[in-house]
Amino acid sequence: MDERIRILGLDPGLRHTGWAVIDAQGGHLSFVAAGVANSTQTLPLARRLTELYNQINDVIASFSPDEAAVEETFVNKNPDSTLKLGQARGVVLLAPAQAGLCVTEYTPNQIKKAVVGAGHAQKHQVDMMVHTLLPVSGKLKPDAADALAAAICHSYMRVALRRMQAFTELAK
Amino acid sequence: MDERIRILGLDPGLRHTGWAVIDAQGGHLSFVAAGVANSTQTLPLARRLTELYNQINDVIASFSPDEAAVEETFVNKNPDSTLKLGQARGVVLLAPAQAGLCVTEYTPNQIKKAVVGAGHAQKHQVDMMVHTLLPVSGKLKPDAADALAAAICHSYMRVALRRMQAFTELAK
Repeated sequence: MDERIRILGLDPGLRHTGWAVIDAQGGHLSFVAAGVANSTQTLPLARRLTELYNQINDVIASFSPDEAAVEETFVNKNPDSTLKLGQARGVVLLAPAQAGLCVTEYTPNQIKKAVVGAGHAQKHQVDMMVHTLLPVSGKLKPDAADALAAAICHSYMRVALRRMQAFTELAK
Repeated sequence: MDERIRILGLDPGLRHTGWAVIDAQGGHLSFVAAGVANSTQTLPLARRLTELYNQINDVIASFSPDEAAVEETFVNKNPDSTLKLGQARGVVLLAPAQAGLCVTEYTPNQIKKAVVGAGHAQKHQVDMMVHTLLPVSGKLKPDAADALAAAICHSYMRVALRRMQAFTELAK
């Protein structure tokens, strides 16, 4: 019997950071919760980062995930946007790491590939697949849906990794 | 008699984040401590950010600064470098904000202007001026020297702001 693992998915952004929590047991997934952490645009940057960090910490305290999966930020051509995203990403990665969770990063293409089966899938295909896999999640805000896709991607990658390890053991 | 204010200067970077602590009383400055927080290049990003965050938190716990000044990151043309810098910057801004310190950001040119008197001063001119102002600081690593310059800049800006406020009061 596979152990149950609770996964926290995160999609970082300075204004909105999506989060989602799922339980994975072998190949079976179940939806736990999802939402968006927001920062107040009118506040100074350091305060906004504190807002995000505190909200992510609250999610971790409420749902006690075992592992975290974070979507790798799309590197924008606009350096100011990249810097802003980077700053948000720093605190979003920090929160689960401080809580002792193993944090894995996935590129948007890895997530699409895992969820839809194609690395260059359209956004609506990902959303549809996420709702097919976890219908109970209902209608989510885009950032929360992206975080959920990251969590699903991580659950698949864990299973694949374990199978590979078992296969390597057999070959010994 | 002006109150004594302890200022923490920070120069963020993923590999090395410079920090410096000074006391400012009116126009008088005194050096307290300075150093560099490092992250281990071989560790995953989330762990490296945790290393930086913990070291900055240790500095805050050891020296109890009242306010923080952070050098605004130079936005690089390379998006990957900008993202890395942004991530480090996020956690470096977060640490003092979480501790309840008011965090002010200064551009490199504002710092040069405050320390040397010219926004486009050369790096060695800034170093020389920092050592003239605070000879006791001795030979510092470049990142620590930059953090010290940010702290000095903030001490001047505070005095200038107070004078401006006093002037505005007089005009009422």
